[in-house]
Amino acid sequence: MSEKNDLHEKDYKELNGVEGQKKIAELAKGIHICMMTTVSANGELSSRPMAVQDKPFDGTMWFLTSSTSEKIGEIEQDRHVLLTFAEPSDSKYLSLKGIANVSQDRGKIKELWNPMYKAWFPNGPDDPQIAVLRVEISEGDYWEASSSKIVMMTKYLAAAVTGGAVPVGEAGHVLV
Amino acid sequence: MSEKNDLHEKDYKELNGVEGQKKIAELAKGIHICMMTTVSANGELSSRPMAVQDKPFDGTMWFLTSSTSEKIGEIEQDRHVLLTFAEPSDSKYLSLKGIANVSQDRGKIKELWNPMYKAWFPNGPDDPQIAVLRVEISEGDYWEASSSKIVMMTKYLAAAVTGGAVPVGEAGHVLV
Repeated sequence: MSEKNDLHEKDYKELNGVEGQKKIAELAKGIHICMMTTVSANGELSSRPMAVQDKPFDGTMWFLTSSTSEKIGEIEQDRHVLLTFAEPSDSKYLSLKGIANVSQDRGKIKELWNPMYKAWFPNGPDDPQIAVLRVEISEGDYWEASSSKIVMMTKYLAAAVTGGAVPVGEAGHVLV
Repeated sequence: MSEKNDLHEKDYKELNGVEGQKKIAELAKGIHICMMTTVSANGELSSRPMAVQDKPFDGTMWFLTSSTSEKIGEIEQDRHVLLTFAEPSDSKYLSLKGIANVSQDRGKIKELWNPMYKAWFPNGPDDPQIAVLRVEISEGDYWEASSSKIVMMTKYLAAAVTGGAVPVGEAGHVLV
């Protein structure tokens, strides 16, 4: 269900330009935890909740994590990650594909740090175990509830900003 | 964050036996849509919301979908799937690893059918486009909020039922 070829064409649109980023930002707003999926060496998928930075979506997502966590090893072998956001109370579902990059950039860690991270890193932002995960989003899909369908899909594709005016609807495809 | 090696050992337990299945059932209850992640031929991950059958978790998850949907092609190439469930209002996050199998078993389609599916298959359960996805869950992880941590992790591993009594807590690891 819910994929392009499962829907009537009228329910499926593509979003383009900065409008697409704005739409993603609007949907992700208020969702403080996403699930990050990585691929392990044996081809298995694994996922875990990750705290989302409280800033509008601009095509790049940043996370703090432990440099010894399982996902870091997985990302070093296969940089494909998928971020999924769900808000059942609003029937909002968002899936963002990206390529992850790991660093231990101390300046970036301090920039991203907020007191919530103390639950994982009680020693604060100077803890040498902290790593930064930068995920460059290449494309995404999202689904919103409507009266006529349980969920409707929109496609988002991160690419060169075209500046072209493209219709934006409840469902569509985004080129950013 | 939130993985075993990111947490103090006291926050991480393993659940075993039927208790594990019951715990998963308890957590998944009331979450009517999960995200199903599959792997495409080029190694990219993709995910989409899927309606969850309204019955207690017993180690197998069943879905109805279109036989022409993108995920069916992906599953035919790589049967690894990941199901994630999120309920932000309760700080519940659940990730289940499994192996998917596609069929067009008419009897099973009729058994799983409910009127909600009419949104995707207006012609009803006899629509020849409908396929059944059976996902055998091999293991899972879940996270629940606590006062001391934003999320706490529990590991669930589907295996032979041991019948052994294993402590069940707010966080742990499940052998079913």
